Amino acid sequence: MSQDPLVVFTPSGKRGRFPAGTPVLTAARQLGVDLDSVCGGRGICSKCQVAPSYGEFSKHGVNVAPDALSDWNEVEDRYNRKRGLKPGRRLGCQAQIMRDVVIDVPPESQVHKQVVRKAASVRTMIMDPATKLYFVSVAEPDMHEPTGDLERLAQALKAQWDIPDVTADASLLARLQPMLRKSGFEVTVALHKSHTDDVAQVLEVWPGLHESGLYGLAIDLGSTTVAAHLTDLETGDVVAASGIMNPQIRFGEDLMSRVSYAMMNPGGAQEMTRTVREAIDTLATEIAKEGGIDPALIVETTFVCNPVMHHLLLGIDPVELGQAPFALATSASVAMPARELGLTAINARARSYILPCIAGHVGADAAAVALSEQPGKSEDLVLIVDVGTNAEIILGDTSRVLACSSPTGPAFEGAQISSGQRAATGAIEAIRIDPETKEPRFRVIGCDKWSDEAGFAEETAATGITGICGSGIIEAVAELRMAGLMDDSGLIGSAAQTGTDRCVADGRTNAYLVHDGTAEGGPRITVTQGDVRAIQLAKSALYAGARLLMDERGVDRVDRVVLAGAFGAHISAKHAMVLGMIPDAPLDKVSSAGNAAGTGARIALCNVAARAEIERTVREITKVETAIEPRFQEHFVAANAIPHKTDPFPELGKVAPLPRVSFNTGAQGDDGDGRRRRRRRGA
Amino acid sequence: MSQDPLVVFTPSGKRGRFPAGTPVLTAARQLGVDLDSVCGGRGICSKCQVAPSYGEFSKHGVNVAPDALSDWNEVEDRYNRKRGLKPGRRLGCQAQIMRDVVIDVPPESQVHKQVVRKAASVRTMIMDPATKLYFVSVAEPDMHEPTGDLERLAQALKAQWDIPDVTADASLLARLQPMLRKSGFEVTVALHKSHTDDVAQVLEVWPGLHESGLYGLAIDLGSTTVAAHLTDLETGDVVAASGIMNPQIRFGEDLMSRVSYAMMNPGGAQEMTRTVREAIDTLATEIAKEGGIDPALIVETTFVCNPVMHHLLLGIDPVELGQAPFALATSASVAMPARELGLTAINARARSYILPCIAGHVGADAAAVALSEQPGKSEDLVLIVDVGTNAEIILGDTSRVLACSSPTGPAFEGAQISSGQRAATGAIEAIRIDPETKEPRFRVIGCDKWSDEAGFAEETAATGITGICGSGIIEAVAELRMAGLMDDSGLIGSAAQTGTDRCVADGRTNAYLVHDGTAEGGPRITVTQGDVRAIQLAKSALYAGARLLMDERGVDRVDRVVLAGAFGAHISAKHAMVLGMIPDAPLDKVSSAGNAAGTGARIALCNVAARAEIERTVREITKVETAIEPRFQEHFVAANAIPHKTDPFPELGKVAPLPRVSFNTGAQGDDGDGRRRRRRRGA
Repeated sequence: MSQDPLVVFTPSGKRGRFPAGTPVLTAARQLGVDLDSVCGGRGICSKCQVAPSYGEFSKHGVNVAPDALSDWNEVEDRYNRKRGLKPGRRLGCQAQIMRDVVIDVPPESQVHKQVVRKAASVRTMIMDPATKLYFVSVAEPDMHEPTGDLERLAQALKAQWDIPDVTADASLLARLQPMLRKSGFEVTVALHKSHTDDVAQVLEVWPGLHESGLYGLAIDLGSTTVAAHLTDLETGDVVAASGIMNPQIRFGEDLMSRVSYAMMNPGGAQEMTRTVREAIDTLATEIAKEGGIDPALIVETTFVCNPVMHHLLLGIDPVELGQAPFALATSASVAMPARELGLTAINARARSYILPCIAGHVGADAAAVALSEQPGKSEDLVLIVDVGTNAEIILGDTSRVLACSSPTGPAFEGAQISSGQRAATGAIEAIRIDPETKEPRFRVIGCDKWSDEAGFAEETAATGITGICGSGIIEAVAELRMAGLMDDSGLIGSAAQTGTDRCVADGRTNAYLVHDGTAEGGPRITVTQGDVRAIQLAKSALYAGARLLMDERGVDRVDRVVLAGAFGAHISAKHAMVLGMIPDAPLDKVSSAGNAAGTGARIALCNVAARAEIERTVREITKVETAIEPRFQEHFVAANAIPHKTDPFPELGKVAPLPRVSFNTGAQGDDGDGRRRRRRRGA
Repeated sequence: MSQDPLVVFTPSGKRGRFPAGTPVLTAARQLGVDLDSVCGGRGICSKCQVAPSYGEFSKHGVNVAPDALSDWNEVEDRYNRKRGLKPGRRLGCQAQIMRDVVIDVPPESQVHKQVVRKAASVRTMIMDPATKLYFVSVAEPDMHEPTGDLERLAQALKAQWDIPDVTADASLLARLQPMLRKSGFEVTVALHKSHTDDVAQVLEVWPGLHESGLYGLAIDLGSTTVAAHLTDLETGDVVAASGIMNPQIRFGEDLMSRVSYAMMNPGGAQEMTRTVREAIDTLATEIAKEGGIDPALIVETTFVCNPVMHHLLLGIDPVELGQAPFALATSASVAMPARELGLTAINARARSYILPCIAGHVGADAAAVALSEQPGKSEDLVLIVDVGTNAEIILGDTSRVLACSSPTGPAFEGAQISSGQRAATGAIEAIRIDPETKEPRFRVIGCDKWSDEAGFAEETAATGITGICGSGIIEAVAELRMAGLMDDSGLIGSAAQTGTDRCVADGRTNAYLVHDGTAEGGPRITVTQGDVRAIQLAKSALYAGARLLMDERGVDRVDRVVLAGAFGAHISAKHAMVLGMIPDAPLDKVSSAGNAAGTGARIALCNVAARAEIERTVREITKVETAIEPRFQEHFVAANAIPHKTDPFPELGKVAPLPRVSFNTGAQGDDGDGRRRRRRRGA
């Protein structure tokens, strides 16, 4: 043959001719094929494993022969004996191309692994973290050419990995010297290369080839809970996930109470900062234990949080966020050593990255949702709602993205509800009321059966039926309305008006009895008029925020709705729409994104380019401030009712049009009233 | 007149025409005239004061009229009432050019002030520190355009000062918010702009115009003492200078004992690091108090030190510096937050800069000497010797610079000398021995008189005569040789051999009695044979190092000698040459540079470009390692004697040729011996 052998890499399809004897890894690099290697081709890291295909790809026009690659060599032999190579695998740095060949790069040998996210979203995540491992052989010191160990490490990284410039702090220098000598001047370093700085920082050094991996923590710092995902920075796998209550709760349930605490108590902000930092540090220790890894292997952390938590994490007094014009200390992303955030449990030189905020009320958590859900890349107009004590609302498509936040209060989380509780075993999470009998049936967390199914009582006997959580109360209110037990204005009818003993007098108003467990020593669970009012306030705030963004876009409907947040995953879309929490949309166009903010934190952890992307994105998002927008109040007032709609949800199938009811007068609501309301909402 | 008015600035001579009504500051900026302004032309900082010259400069061809500048305005009036303007001064930002005018920029109004260094050196220092003050008006937050306070500060710095990019750490963000609001969004910031990074860091923020100045600490961290200069970063003035003993002395007098301590004691290196950092922190507190300034105004620190102190300061185990190949952890400069070096007394965000090292034995102190003395810019060949426990030796001119260090030991500092002591009140610092009578006379620190002058006894009565310091012992040994009381090999003669009772038996050898204070309860001060041997070892090491560099350059003489170090300032050049400490040179070509390392630290503190300069310089210096160079041993052995020279110092005038003496045989040394020695030294 006069021509050099042809090599075709799959799945990339990249191909080229190389002189016989060229190592597969060399060919892959020259063609830009994504083939991993930590040791730089020394046959010790095994990251460059490939699967050559003999014969079977001849249909592609490649003449594949069994001797297309060089013979299995000693290095491969030793590796196979010690660690074992899967059948059919070769080490890319050892096997040489001898004849035309097709070589498959299995997923685990790709540097930029694609991590398919589970759940609803199909978006894949490309592994390209800010910190990666590099194995290097460093020149030994020479008295005749005196240079420092760091300088010789830098030369090695430049020569062997084409890394132009590195730096290291004093604590790393103190480790580097003994480590180089212990390892015969062959070490693996963890290099952090941010998207804004050309100089890479040596975060850690290990003797020889480091094989215990590298990890990161994605932290979703909420007002109520702190959730962390311990993530393998090579594979993207979540090794452990853990959460704790935010201990700041003792300074105030919601954000504004904490801002007040800071305002009223000298040193209060510092106290809250210290408290949450300690909690995060403890969480880091625990999650490393849970994942079975040395905490010193955690070298990266990313944070998403609302602006108040953002400021308190950074040690900034949040007082400005409690009053107009809601000025942030900084809206940009913040990159800093993790230890400056009080993270002492992980690697001493670990880095932290806090995503940028969008505005004084729309924080890094909303930015993370935008990073995860990518409204700016959506062809259809998507409304993303992250429901919490403060709801973050994003509306957009490829042409423009808008964002606002809305103060929904804690009712959706079961707080301020008479029988309310957090989502925990024993909480009623779903409820149905028969429109004919007006009798309820429900499901509690920890039991798959409905309350009218056989075995329910037995299965719930141990934990009891303890209260109603957020998703339960939303369904309860919507069901009361659908069953005709509540009028347009949200007033619960009396037993006389509704014809059921479930409606009981409760002071000057009425309540609906869901479950009476007093006989078994349990609680009597009702939905009171006060509960309905609390939900009405919350849903009006949420709806008004969404409506305001729709006004800004000049639309009166959206193509699809994404419910984000842990809570969003449990809400029944049908009931949310009956209640008027979210604008109407076809049911199959309402999806849950799970903890999208947490996902955004993980994306920023696993892909450094995503940090640049979200920093660009937040600048492009149009911020709408609900607090100063008069139309927000209008929308809020207008959204207070749970209105009669003539044929609101054809797609809901069995859901009948809501009856026009008014318990104030005891008579039916008039058409005029209903029309007026519709006009306001559809304007 | 059809032409615009002409303005000529002195002393720069820069000139240009500007439309009538142009403020002087504006014209100065457009012409690149070095006219200061912190407030950016708002008439509040008064840094831009100028002295217009009316009439008197007409000989320069400028038609100067009394109304060449606009009338004194309200802003100047107010400033004059409140603070007072010197007669003839105007505020450059207020006074407008109306007709042709000559304007003098007085030295205190120049940004890049030239600071003339005192003492021997005439080198001037240009003020251009890494951290400077900027007064800015920051836009107030706007709910409709939400940005963070830091981002608005960055915009203001860009618009008002053309500073492209700034960053700030979390602790600054926490201060920025209240400060902006307290000051009506007008603040002064201290911006640190390193020579290696395009992004400036906001180190501090003050409300309104900050007028309490900005300071830096230049720290010379020696094995024995730590000296600091508190320096005004605007004027370059040394506000206070202070020093303390290096508390590491308790772990070992010299560097190698401290390295041994680190090797022998687990945690020993950390212990020494902690000890020295605490001492520096205390020194910083004290010097600020002495200078009468708030320590928080200290925002910059520079360090010079030998490699062992360098490593111990940074928290790096110095063990590698105690053994070949003497590998540094890093030879590059180190820039870091000062608090990471344990400096808690000064500004929390202050920066530290540690000058680069030249080699494992030639540290940042030698680099600082090179920065101060600039051998690479010398037209004649200069030998710079920084005498200490370890001597740093630099030889060079514009063509090439070489450096080495030589282990002189502590004898030159009075240690290991029987009557030795540190240079303190009561120590003999100078001594003369009459060649005829063999009687000594001497001077002690704290008294200007010689011991044979009237009033000496009275003036020294209080402190006593306590011992001999480094410069004293050098003179004593040289004088013993010149008085014929010691032979070529350094052997002190007996009373019989020398004919003086001052030579007394001391075990198996002889000693020379300098002063017997026992009658007054003081010490009996002698120079023993052991003292002479210690000085011979020290001077041989020093000479051999210099000689090695001369070999490398292929020369057998140098044009001039600079004695650096506090000690260098007190050595008699004549005696040093008689002793053979330094190569022979004309006496008027031997100068003292004072604490050149400390000066180098101050230069790096006051001028950021000097940091780039020394980083470049150290790379260009040829390092010579004495420890592995066989010729060093040869030179060392050859230099041990204090040889007979036939006519060694014609320029010394009254110093007679040294007699050829040998007390070993009791006879004169032979010519052959003397010639052989000369040949070795002059080869």
